[in-house]
Amino acid sequence: MRLQDGLWGEIHQLNAEVILDHCHSWMSRIGWIDNFDRAAGTADGEHAGIEFVDSEVYKLLEAMAWELSTRSDDVLESRYRDLVRRIGAAQEPDGYLHTSFGREGQPARYSDLEWGHELYCFGHLIQAAVARLRTGHDDELPGIARRVADHLYREFGPEGRPAICGHPEVEMALAEFARATGDDRYLELAALLVDRRGHGMLKTTLFHGHDYFLDDLPVRDAAVLRGHAVRALYLSAGAADVAIDGDDDELLDAITTQWANTVARRTYITGGMGSHHQNEEFGDDYELPADRAYAETCASIGSVMLSWRLLLRTGEPKYADLIERTLLNGILVSPREDGRAFYYANTLHQRTAGTGESEPGLSERAEATLRAPWFEVSCCPTNIARTLASLPGYVATSDDDGIQVHQYAPMQLDTTLPDGRRVAFRVSTGYPFDERITIVPTHDVGSPTTLTLRIPAWAARTATATFNGQAVPITGATVAITRAFRTTDAVELVLPLEPRFTWPHPSVDAVRGQVAVESGPLVLALEDVDLPEGVTVDRVTIDTASAPATGSDGARVRLRIHPSQSAAWPFGDLERPAGEPLQADLIPYFRWANRGPSTMRVWIPVSDLG
Amino acid sequence: MRLQDGLWGEIHQLNAEVILDHCHSWMSRIGWIDNFDRAAGTADGEHAGIEFVDSEVYKLLEAMAWELSTRSDDVLESRYRDLVRRIGAAQEPDGYLHTSFGREGQPARYSDLEWGHELYCFGHLIQAAVARLRTGHDDELPGIARRVADHLYREFGPEGRPAICGHPEVEMALAEFARATGDDRYLELAALLVDRRGHGMLKTTLFHGHDYFLDDLPVRDAAVLRGHAVRALYLSAGAADVAIDGDDDELLDAITTQWANTVARRTYITGGMGSHHQNEEFGDDYELPADRAYAETCASIGSVMLSWRLLLRTGEPKYADLIERTLLNGILVSPREDGRAFYYANTLHQRTAGTGESEPGLSERAEATLRAPWFEVSCCPTNIARTLASLPGYVATSDDDGIQVHQYAPMQLDTTLPDGRRVAFRVSTGYPFDERITIVPTHDVGSPTTLTLRIPAWAARTATATFNGQAVPITGATVAITRAFRTTDAVELVLPLEPRFTWPHPSVDAVRGQVAVESGPLVLALEDVDLPEGVTVDRVTIDTASAPATGSDGARVRLRIHPSQSAAWPFGDLERPAGEPLQADLIPYFRWANRGPSTMRVWIPVSDLG
Repeated sequence: MRLQDGLWGEIHQLNAEVILDHCHSWMSRIGWIDNFDRAAGTADGEHAGIEFVDSEVYKLLEAMAWELSTRSDDVLESRYRDLVRRIGAAQEPDGYLHTSFGREGQPARYSDLEWGHELYCFGHLIQAAVARLRTGHDDELPGIARRVADHLYREFGPEGRPAICGHPEVEMALAEFARATGDDRYLELAALLVDRRGHGMLKTTLFHGHDYFLDDLPVRDAAVLRGHAVRALYLSAGAADVAIDGDDDELLDAITTQWANTVARRTYITGGMGSHHQNEEFGDDYELPADRAYAETCASIGSVMLSWRLLLRTGEPKYADLIERTLLNGILVSPREDGRAFYYANTLHQRTAGTGESEPGLSERAEATLRAPWFEVSCCPTNIARTLASLPGYVATSDDDGIQVHQYAPMQLDTTLPDGRRVAFRVSTGYPFDERITIVPTHDVGSPTTLTLRIPAWAARTATATFNGQAVPITGATVAITRAFRTTDAVELVLPLEPRFTWPHPSVDAVRGQVAVESGPLVLALEDVDLPEGVTVDRVTIDTASAPATGSDGARVRLRIHPSQSAAWPFGDLERPAGEPLQADLIPYFRWANRGPSTMRVWIPVSDLG
Repeated sequence: MRLQDGLWGEIHQLNAEVILDHCHSWMSRIGWIDNFDRAAGTADGEHAGIEFVDSEVYKLLEAMAWELSTRSDDVLESRYRDLVRRIGAAQEPDGYLHTSFGREGQPARYSDLEWGHELYCFGHLIQAAVARLRTGHDDELPGIARRVADHLYREFGPEGRPAICGHPEVEMALAEFARATGDDRYLELAALLVDRRGHGMLKTTLFHGHDYFLDDLPVRDAAVLRGHAVRALYLSAGAADVAIDGDDDELLDAITTQWANTVARRTYITGGMGSHHQNEEFGDDYELPADRAYAETCASIGSVMLSWRLLLRTGEPKYADLIERTLLNGILVSPREDGRAFYYANTLHQRTAGTGESEPGLSERAEATLRAPWFEVSCCPTNIARTLASLPGYVATSDDDGIQVHQYAPMQLDTTLPDGRRVAFRVSTGYPFDERITIVPTHDVGSPTTLTLRIPAWAARTATATFNGQAVPITGATVAITRAFRTTDAVELVLPLEPRFTWPHPSVDAVRGQVAVESGPLVLALEDVDLPEGVTVDRVTIDTASAPATGSDGARVRLRIHPSQSAAWPFGDLERPAGEPLQADLIPYFRWANRGPSTMRVWIPVSDLG
């Protein structure tokens, strides 16, 4: 499958052309790649960066592996090979491979399982190897990963120490590696690590309890995600792998329930997860403050990984719905439009315009400014890189009967079914900016196959579909067309994108009396760049008597501008301030903060609710 | 002045009888007092607790000093003398006195000004000495403090190192000490420390920028409080002392403006300040989430100290209004009704009932449970102790013309004016639970003096006053009665306490569409103990068509109970759920969490706003 043009294609291309290079040059410049040479004894100097920066190099490597499967690029190929060689040289005879532990002057191996992230780093190395295997190369990198995984099996397997890593990640890596290599020991180890968790094994600190580590309750006993959001989502994704490949329905049911409760009560409209800056944690049910949304980029990526596993298992379109929402809003908002700076946390309400440009050097979290090129803990940029590089993997699946299209973008789908039939379609669309999606077979199939199309929940009442001009009834969250497809056929799906008001559940206190505007799968936002000079987004309310109009790049809405802040005690009589009417444009949320410092809000107070 | 009975008197007594002992026995048990013996070389063992626990002993000492002035208590007296003796024994020949720095195996003196809190600890020692001096004893403790202050003057004064402490506190201590001793060098040093701050002198960390330390802008250049709330408020209080005693009107104007902007935009209805758990910081203007209110107890105490200074300087009743609000809501909520457990952070919305009892041992922040007896960083309990011990100091002032009553409680006011006239009144009232305040002279004054009474802002339109039964017109925020008072006179002030709805400013997003109920100076709260079994506060809305009724202990309101949480995507169509009507009682906010684990909210969603 190949993404061509359109939003997805452009993002995929930006990643290939800019983000991979950006990550590579930053990590070259600040010595994170050199760490491997130091570990191998071929370079001098102190280890650069915090103790788990190996993982960033591995995520870049994974991104490169995916990218190399879609095009030929000598520079990329040679960078990839150079990285693999240097990483391989740092591997110790017993398979252990980490640049921060176990050498002279460093902490001993596995001496800080809570915070050292050793298994987390191994997991990312193994995932890079999985990408290499899945793209058809069983070469150096998978070899390195096999030695790491075998080492892990010895150290932490049934005969090893009964321990777990503070940051889950290796679980899904091992399960994927078992699939990619056919070696079930890795799945066995993943299952062991999942089951060991939740018994209070990890040492807590004053500020990091067992719940922070997801070590408070076994995965199979929890009802909702909690604790550190990225840890929680990575663990769930790994546990889903273990449940699915190990036929553990009890575990899978638990994860499915956790997904449903988390999506219903602990997820932002953008798909973002994790409400607390403090400890990067989930909050309580319905605790979803827009202005302190943490919604870490990596949590959105973890959410996509989890939903993808449940989608593959069940085929239920609600999982693809959340993937689309999260990708187009929670994830795409992170990279700046030029691909050279990123948000780590993704607020839904910026009250104060940042000052000046992006932070030039290593950033804490890029909260006060317009994204940052790199971070002290720089998990997000490389996570973006590997996610965008693997975008083609998220759009469709196939089974015995045909193809299921989960995401809409201009692309060529081409696969061979288990019975040997080749099925191929070209998808043409300007979606999510154009409502029309045209799907044309590019290969005749002699016998009936099924083309299954997802109907997003927001289009349940408005979507229409035709086959060669004849209406196809839509009754559920998918439409399935079974035909002996010929290249002269055409399927057309229309997903109307008229902007719509979206209201919060009454329990979401933080945005009560406010409304968001969505267009198709895109969450829109008001940025003060689109307001009169000097007016911030906190001085407007929105009129909801008539529906929002289609705007040039999102929607056009009726606002009222209110007086500026007062200097009086802010609690007393009910105020319903009058406001000057004004029309203004909303833009896709993911595009905000690309036109200089600005204030922004997704949820806009409703004029007639005071 | 002496507090008798009533809310203030009871709290004052609880502090004297329970809280002082509680603090003393905890610090005895966990070795924080023994630290001084170790420093003096008369005991063995490792230093107990984090590096600034000396300050907790000093705050207790200050509380004891205040308390010893109001009553005779042999046990308290002997504990006080024991503490002073042991602290004095740890003082080094040059005046330095700290149990965590400068000895073998400890960091060097002043090697960690950002985080070591050495000057902060000295400040608390000096404040204890100020309490001792103000209560008429120039004995051992003031002597110890003089040697510390002289040491500080040498080390950090005009001839010393141009440095500041990461945590402001010593500024106000030095300024108060200058007043109490008449030695202007201490004021000079306080002014130097205030002026040095704001030039980026302190080393920042990834998560703690110059703004966290209030080192981003000089005090005289800032428009609003920001950064770490307790640091900000302590600094402002010290800067106010410096401005007032140094006749620095520019500095005082800046602080006055910061107070006004902070109160208008960054203060909770309870008087609490500091919205962020992360870094314990102020948030943006109008960023006041109820469910993540940090509102640290010590920040409320700092706010009272700042307002008190501005009240003394200006006599403006708005400062006394905020003191009353903060004391009765933001501070009194911290101690449990038995005085043996405390909140560190003070939420205005508890979504999930804590489990079980108070935490038995050292707590992080007591957020998930019902207060905690002691904390790893235990600034709040001892701060409560010294604040409650000094309550009598906050109720009234006198000047050339007479007495100004700022707070209402049953008490005996008795003072001698500068011209030698003795002025004395007995105040009788059940306020804030009874609206009637009767003030009777207990001493004839031969010539006219003025009795000035504060009219709280919430009573501006309803308060009435009489002198011997004759109405006294109320035109402003105070009523002044000038008479040659005789013991047969009676002044009666009525501050009607009918519960009232209080609405948030439209910019306070977090509580939009919600309303609070207040009765006089008390903020009320809904606790689920007062709802039907199994119903949490997040399932109710409130009807506001008719005013709340007076309840047995606060107010009685009309609620609607709504269905429980759903498991669906929470953003979509506008829902206006129907609810079963119900009447329920609200209680004073400060009394919540005294009847077992419960959910609670101050701001209640309004039924007809959806």
